[in-house]
Order: sequence, then C-alpha cells, then structure tokens
Amino acid sequence: MTSASTYQRLSDYLRECATLHAVGNVLGWDQETYMPSGGASSRAEHAALIARLHHERVSDPKLGELIAGCESELDVSQETIEAANVREARRDYDRRTKIPADLVSRLAEARSAAQHAWKDARTNNDFPAFRPHLDTVLGLTREMATCLADGGELYDALLDEYEPDAKAADIEAVFTPLRQRLSDLIKDIADNGTPPNTNVLHANIPAAKQEAFGRFVAESCGFSFERGRLDVTVHPFCEGVAPGDTRMTTRYREDSWTDALYGTMHEMGHGLYEQGLPLGERHGRAELPDQHGLPCGEAVSLGMHESQSRLWENAIGRSEAFWHFALPHAQRLMGEAFSDQTPPSLAAAVNTATPSLIRVEADEGTYNLHVMIRFELERALISGDLSTGDLSAAWNDRYKEFLGVDVPRDREGCLQDVHWSFGLIGYFPTYTLGNLHMAQLWRAIRRDLGDIDAQVARGEFAPLLSWLRTHIHQHGRRYSANELTKRATGEDLSPDPLVEYLESKLRPNYGLG
Amino acid sequence: MTSASTYQRLSDYLRECATLHAVGNVLGWDQETYMPSGGASSRAEHAALIARLHHERVSDPKLGELIAGCESELDVSQETIEAANVREARRDYDRRTKIPADLVSRLAEARSAAQHAWKDARTNNDFPAFRPHLDTVLGLTREMATCLADGGELYDALLDEYEPDAKAADIEAVFTPLRQRLSDLIKDIADNGTPPNTNVLHANIPAAKQEAFGRFVAESCGFSFERGRLDVTVHPFCEGVAPGDTRMTTRYREDSWTDALYGTMHEMGHGLYEQGLPLGERHGRAELPDQHGLPCGEAVSLGMHESQSRLWENAIGRSEAFWHFALPHAQRLMGEAFSDQTPPSLAAAVNTATPSLIRVEADEGTYNLHVMIRFELERALISGDLSTGDLSAAWNDRYKEFLGVDVPRDREGCLQDVHWSFGLIGYFPTYTLGNLHMAQLWRAIRRDLGDIDAQVARGEFAPLLSWLRTHIHQHGRRYSANELTKRATGEDLSPDPLVEYLESKLRPNYGLG
Repeated sequence: MTSASTYQRLSDYLRECATLHAVGNVLGWDQETYMPSGGASSRAEHAALIARLHHERVSDPKLGELIAGCESELDVSQETIEAANVREARRDYDRRTKIPADLVSRLAEARSAAQHAWKDARTNNDFPAFRPHLDTVLGLTREMATCLADGGELYDALLDEYEPDAKAADIEAVFTPLRQRLSDLIKDIADNGTPPNTNVLHANIPAAKQEAFGRFVAESCGFSFERGRLDVTVHPFCEGVAPGDTRMTTRYREDSWTDALYGTMHEMGHGLYEQGLPLGERHGRAELPDQHGLPCGEAVSLGMHESQSRLWENAIGRSEAFWHFALPHAQRLMGEAFSDQTPPSLAAAVNTATPSLIRVEADEGTYNLHVMIRFELERALISGDLSTGDLSAAWNDRYKEFLGVDVPRDREGCLQDVHWSFGLIGYFPTYTLGNLHMAQLWRAIRRDLGDIDAQVARGEFAPLLSWLRTHIHQHGRRYSANELTKRATGEDLSPDPLVEYLESKLRPNYGLG
Repeated sequence: MTSASTYQRLSDYLRECATLHAVGNVLGWDQETYMPSGGASSRAEHAALIARLHHERVSDPKLGELIAGCESELDVSQETIEAANVREARRDYDRRTKIPADLVSRLAEARSAAQHAWKDARTNNDFPAFRPHLDTVLGLTREMATCLADGGELYDALLDEYEPDAKAADIEAVFTPLRQRLSDLIKDIADNGTPPNTNVLHANIPAAKQEAFGRFVAESCGFSFERGRLDVTVHPFCEGVAPGDTRMTTRYREDSWTDALYGTMHEMGHGLYEQGLPLGERHGRAELPDQHGLPCGEAVSLGMHESQSRLWENAIGRSEAFWHFALPHAQRLMGEAFSDQTPPSLAAAVNTATPSLIRVEADEGTYNLHVMIRFELERALISGDLSTGDLSAAWNDRYKEFLGVDVPRDREGCLQDVHWSFGLIGYFPTYTLGNLHMAQLWRAIRRDLGDIDAQVARGEFAPLLSWLRTHIHQHGRRYSANELTKRATGEDLSPDPLVEYLESKLRPNYGLG
C-alpha cells in the first residue's frame, strides 16, 4: 500500500464523519430557527442518535489505524497540508479516545443537572444552591483534564479544546499588562471623559427595515447569500453547516437597532471565515485543494474565529469610514432617524466605554475586562487555588478593582454566565484572544492596504476580504492561531495593538488627549 | 426470553430506524424550504448517507431475526396492535430484502438518467428521445416486481408499495364503471350545462393576505401549529417529520388565491392525519399507546392519505357550508374582493368540471378521468399488453374517448408527468382511490354527524376531526385501507358514493336536473 492511498483512505473516512457532523448541524440550526415547539423531544432523539453515530466513527480504532498508517508513511513534521491534516487528525482522535466513556457520561449527567440548578440559582440569586453542582462539574472536568493532560498545567488541557496549542501561562503574560492598561483607560474615561451623544441608538426602527439594512451590509461586505442565510433566533449564532451552506442568525430589537446591525456584522465575520475555508468549488473556493472533512478545511480556533467577527463588527462597523459608506443606505433603508446624522456622529455614538456588570451587554471598551476576570478565576478553580466557597467574593473584588463597579448580588455577578454550569472551562479567554488577534491583524491590514479607510468609505470591501482569505481563512488548521497571526503580521501576539486600537478611538471620542 | 421482550426489542430497533428516517425528513424539508442553493451538492451527500444508514438497518438480518422471533412467539393472525406491527414489519422487511442490491443500484441509475431525459423530452416535445429510457425503467421495474411478486399480476407487486393489499383487478372493477359514469357526467355538463360565474377566482390578493387566511382556516380546522408549520415551496407537500412535528407547505399566486387556499387545505388534510397518528404525548395523542417507529404509528396507504387531503380540500373547502363560516374571515383577511360575494356564489365558483389536458391543473370534476387513464396504460405497459411505441396513440385515444379532448402533442399528453421517468408505477391509482375512500367516508360522516353542514357553517370542525381520528387516524397500519373504510362505513369500496357526491354538487351548479 502506498502512502497516497492510506492518506486517501483517511481523507475518505474523515469526509464521511464530516458529512454526519453536517447532518447534526442542520438539525441544530432547524431546532433554533423553525422547529415547532412540539418537535423538541423528537429532535433531542435525532440529535442524540447522530451525535452517537458520529462519536462512534471518530473514536473508532479503525481511524486510529489509518492515522498511525499515515504517520509511518509520511513525515508529519513537514509544513505540507497533508502533514498538518495527519497531525491534527491525531490531536482530535487522541482527545476523543483518551477520556473513558464512563467519565463522558458522568460529565454529561452532571452538566445537565448543573444547568438546571444554575437557571434556578440565577433566578433566585442563590449561589449556595448552585455551588455543589459547580463543585461536581469542576471535579469531573479536572478528571477529564487529567486524562488529556500531557504534563504541565491541567487548565491547558481544557484550553486546548478551544484554542489548540495555547498555554495559560502565555495568555497570562499577555492578559496581565492588558488588563492593567485597559482598566486605567476606562477609569480615566469614567473620571475625566465627556460621553458622546448616543441618542440615535434609541431611535425606533421596525425589524423589517433593520433586516433590509443588515442584509445590504452583509452582502456589501462579501457574504454570499447563495451559499448562506440570515435568520432570526433568540441567541444569534453562525454555523458553517456544510460546504456551500453557511447560516447566520440575528435578532431585532426595535428600540435598539445597533443590536441587530452589529450582531449581524459579528456573525457575518464568522460567516466570511467559514465561506473562506478551502472546501472546494461548492464553497466558492474552487482554486484551492478541497479540504472538506479534513482539519485544513476547519477554522483553527475559537479565538481566531472571534478575531474575524470582531474585526467586521468593531474595526470596520464602528469606524467613521464605514459610516461614510453606510449612512446613505441607512437613510434609504431605515428612514428618517438617520436624516440628521453624519459619519462622525454615528461613529461617536457607537464607540463607548462604560463600566457595567454584565459581560454580554458590555461595550467594546470594557468587554475584555469581564473576560480576563473569568479567565483568572476559572484557572484558579481548576488548579485548586480558589474554592467555590470563595468564588463570589473573588469575583466581586476583581469587578471593583478593574471595572470600578460594586456587584450588588451574585445574579449580576458570578451567576450571570451559563458557561461553567455547562463545563465550558477554558472557553472564556478565547473572547479576548480574539480581540488581540483582531487588533494585531488590523494593524497589519492598515499597513498592507494603505488606503483601507478610503476603500471602506467607498464600500470597497474586496481587498480587505481578500487579505483575510489569503492570510487566515484559506489555511484552515494548517498553522496554529498564534503562528497564523505571526505569519500575517510578522510579530508575536502582544497587548500593544489592542490597547492602542482602543485608546486611539476611545480617548478622542471622550474628549481626552 | 419472553414474548414481551422480543417484541420490545423489535420495537426499540424499529424506533431507532424511525429516528434515522426522521433525520432524513428534516434534511428533505430544509432542502425544499430554506437551504441556500450553494448547499445542494452537500445536501445530496447528507441525504445519501442517512438513506444508506437507514437502509442498512432496515434490511439487516438482525431485524429479520427479531421479526421471526416475534412470529414464533405470538399469533400474528390476531387483531391486536402487536400482531399487526409484527405482520407489517414482516411485509416491510421482505420488500426491502427481496430486491438484490445490484438491481436497486441499476434502477437508481436508470431513473436518474430517465428523469434528465424526460425533462429534455418534455421541453422539446420529443417522446422518441425519452422512449428508450422509459423502456429501460420499465424493464428494471418489471424485474423488481418479479422479485417481489407472490404469484398473481406483476403490477400488484408494484401497487403494494403505495397501497398495501390492493389488487389491480379489484381496482379495475371499481374504476371501469366509475370512469364511464364520470365521463358521461362531464360530457353532459360540457354539452348542456351553464358554467358558474368564476370571476372572483381571478381577484388579485397579496400573498401575505392569502397566507393569513390560510393559516386561520388551518387553525380553525384543528391543525396544531405548536406541532406543525406552514411554509412556502415550489411544489407543495406535507411531511410528518417526527412525533410532534408535522410540516406542510403551499405556494401563493397573487392572481389565483384558490391555489393557495385549497393547496393549504389539501396539505392540512394530510397534516391532520399525521397529527392524529398514535405517536404519544408529544404528538398530542397521549391517550393512545405510543406507536412511534412501529407500523401502527404510520399512515396506512397513499390512497387513505389522499382521502384525508381531498376530504378537507373538496368535501369541506368547496362546500357552501364552509363559505358560511369562512366568508366573513375572507372579507376580514383578504379584503374587498370578497365584499360582493355570498356563500352560494363562492361555492358555485369553486366547483367546476371542465375537460382539460393537464392532470395537475384539472378540477375536481375531471381529475379522476386523468388518473384512471394512467392506471390503465401503466398496467398494460407492465403486463406487456402495451408497448411504449404505442403509448402516445393509446394516451390520445383515451383522452378523446373519456374527456372529449384532442391532445395536440405529447408535451401536453404522455410526457406531462414525472412519475414514470422516476419509476413510480402503481402510484397513480392511489389518487383516485383516495377520492373513492373520501366520498365513502364522507357519506358515513354525514350519516353519523347528522348536522355536519350546520357545524361546518358555524366553524365547528371538532366533531368531524374527532370522527376521522376515531375511524381512521388512530389505527395507523393496524387494518388495510379497504378494511378501515369498511369498518368505518359498513360497506366495501364502491364507485357509487363518489359519483353521487360529484353529481349532486356539479349538476345543480351547471343548471342541470
């Protein structure tokens, strides 16, 4: 048997797994969008069956043998796509097979119970009722991390699921100065700044008009509606359902049109990444070798995915250049609320830095502080340096220290997020890693595409999208997120670009030098 | 091992098969409704994989052993639900395993090629170009029927797929007098009748208003939108996706509002049957033993399904009683086009009998003639009494004889339907069987629910729906279609109720005695 044929058999095997995974994506999308409520318990059975069939295939020893065959036939340390696919297939297979089935089912049960308990505890502001569930989930998560860990810090084994190759110590080295500098910035703004006029944010705009504008913006930026959709859900998301089929969702609040606009641009950023993966002709990337089902056909990490959503949402969507392009269309499609606006007035209104209690409602200026607090706390929970009994106090101390706000009760504090009840530990830092990658890529884009502001003001997004496709999208998982950013920008990930990006737009917006 | 446990294992096995089948339903529904065009080739892969996994399970010898085990442990000739499930599981398993895999794939290829050829041939009015493909499909279909046949006429083996236990000779015995009497009726109408005023059918009604009215009607009739949906597709359909999830579709033509209204009522009739199957609490039938995945949880035949759609579409929707209820709502929801209408004027406009060339555009008065011609011809094609070389002439002769119309070319004649290119032979007669069952059930309903017209005029559809649930829906495949109708009406299927139903409304509508 030649090397090519073992690799081909591996590819075919993984493609069938990906097809089954795509079926699960369709089920999930339908559940969130159009499924009638009466279908819920049937759907749970459909999803469980497809998940089981998928899991059986991706943890089957036959797959392990195919990977081992490829490893013996080609040098996986090479920089080729093939070597990367085998390396990453090994990573996925090992993660899936290292955790005993018994632990998987105990974790699933504990998570399900913890989620129910969390919902009640949040409603009743009763952290003590949630605490034993959190302890159970943490204990089992630590057990899982022990199975996965390759020496080093346990937390790294969890992080690796969402941000492959990332290490908590490296993240800490970037987050610690970032946190201090952002905290200083927002305190200076709070103490000495003059807030911009944000009245336009509260104009009443019917959902249908917001949708027309959101679709126009998404299409202008390069999202293909022939290979994608935009629908409405309670919790917006974007899913690369299958090659040629990328679906995003948003929601419309008639008294807050920026929710849908920036929500749509955020999901569109995810969607453009998905539409830029090398998945062959039906994906619109006929010029690249089709990587469907293979690691090099998948997004590299949650952090890098978030960098794409934040770039379009914030670096583009909140810029004055964008409003030079978009304002006439906002006037045309969303009506008279925009008749007395200018590009500078809109850019001023949508760039704020107001300390608050709730992460999901935080503005761009303060968001990362919420995230970094969670990273520090969950890392300490996993290492054992922090007990759940001290979590609430530790949370509230840090909110006071870094955001300058008093947390009145756990409901607006350590009970606000669903993640920990779900066992999603190691997920939070990817939000801020996304912003770090974004700012660093954005700096390189401004360098490489000198007149990017003029292009955006003219509605010319193709050079930007092309840059992202060339430097990020088309590589899939060929390089790690940090390597991708280094290759694209020439520098290691650092806090400087993000701090400078935020300072340079927020300080003038609040009348500070 | 006890009988109960073998039966339970069979039930569990079939439930998992049904879950996989439901996943395929979701994929199919999504493909027709919301999938972006770029997702088509991915979706073909998803559907093929799920179909393959489903086929592997339902033709697995393990299933054969479970069925054989139940057969040895319980008397399958009993009238119990359990016996019916084992009998019908045997029927399904045998049909699936009697056809060699090689023949299945040759048929699939031949059908695919024939469909492409048929599309071109219809466009170009070129039957000779389609003929060799039709010969190939017929030859392979005959081969398939030979594998399935249990002695008797080959055509019966094909019919059995759509209308279990039906025999062509029995159908012929009903169709022959029916055809003559309906042909006489429509010729009398054409020669001597005065057509009703149908101007209201061409009022221009925006799609959104038609949709509001259609939803109102469906909800009034008892369709549950908590356990179902109504969407738009090019070709309307209704799918019982899964327990608690029944989805119908329609289409809106702004210059012909009856298309959507009667299309919706037709699909709703299918949907009410699906929502009335004994699929447990999530299906809204908590009072019945849950038959999900078992034959007694499935509709009995295409003909019986069609009887339900035709009953709501025609017996109810085209009645004067219905318009007593519906007219004020049509005025409220669809506007002024209805302001000068009365229940009799609307009932008159929607009950016509105009001979025409195209089946799918035919009215209720002439539809069955189209169908019975196809039944006679396809039966002769399978037996060999008719060669494809003589098909066009035979088609045109019968259209002249029974409908009194000249077929100008094959495009409006024997090339008009997709069915034969697809190998769907034995399917056509179910349309008229549906109307026969419908008329016979409708006669019994009028007998059992004496004031049904008054109930309908008041918008009280619950007694009717309850009658259908009791006599038809709740039984699934426990009895054959003919047995169900006999149990419900006390009589064997006969042409009289359908002829009398059509005569009694069409003759007065055309001013004939």
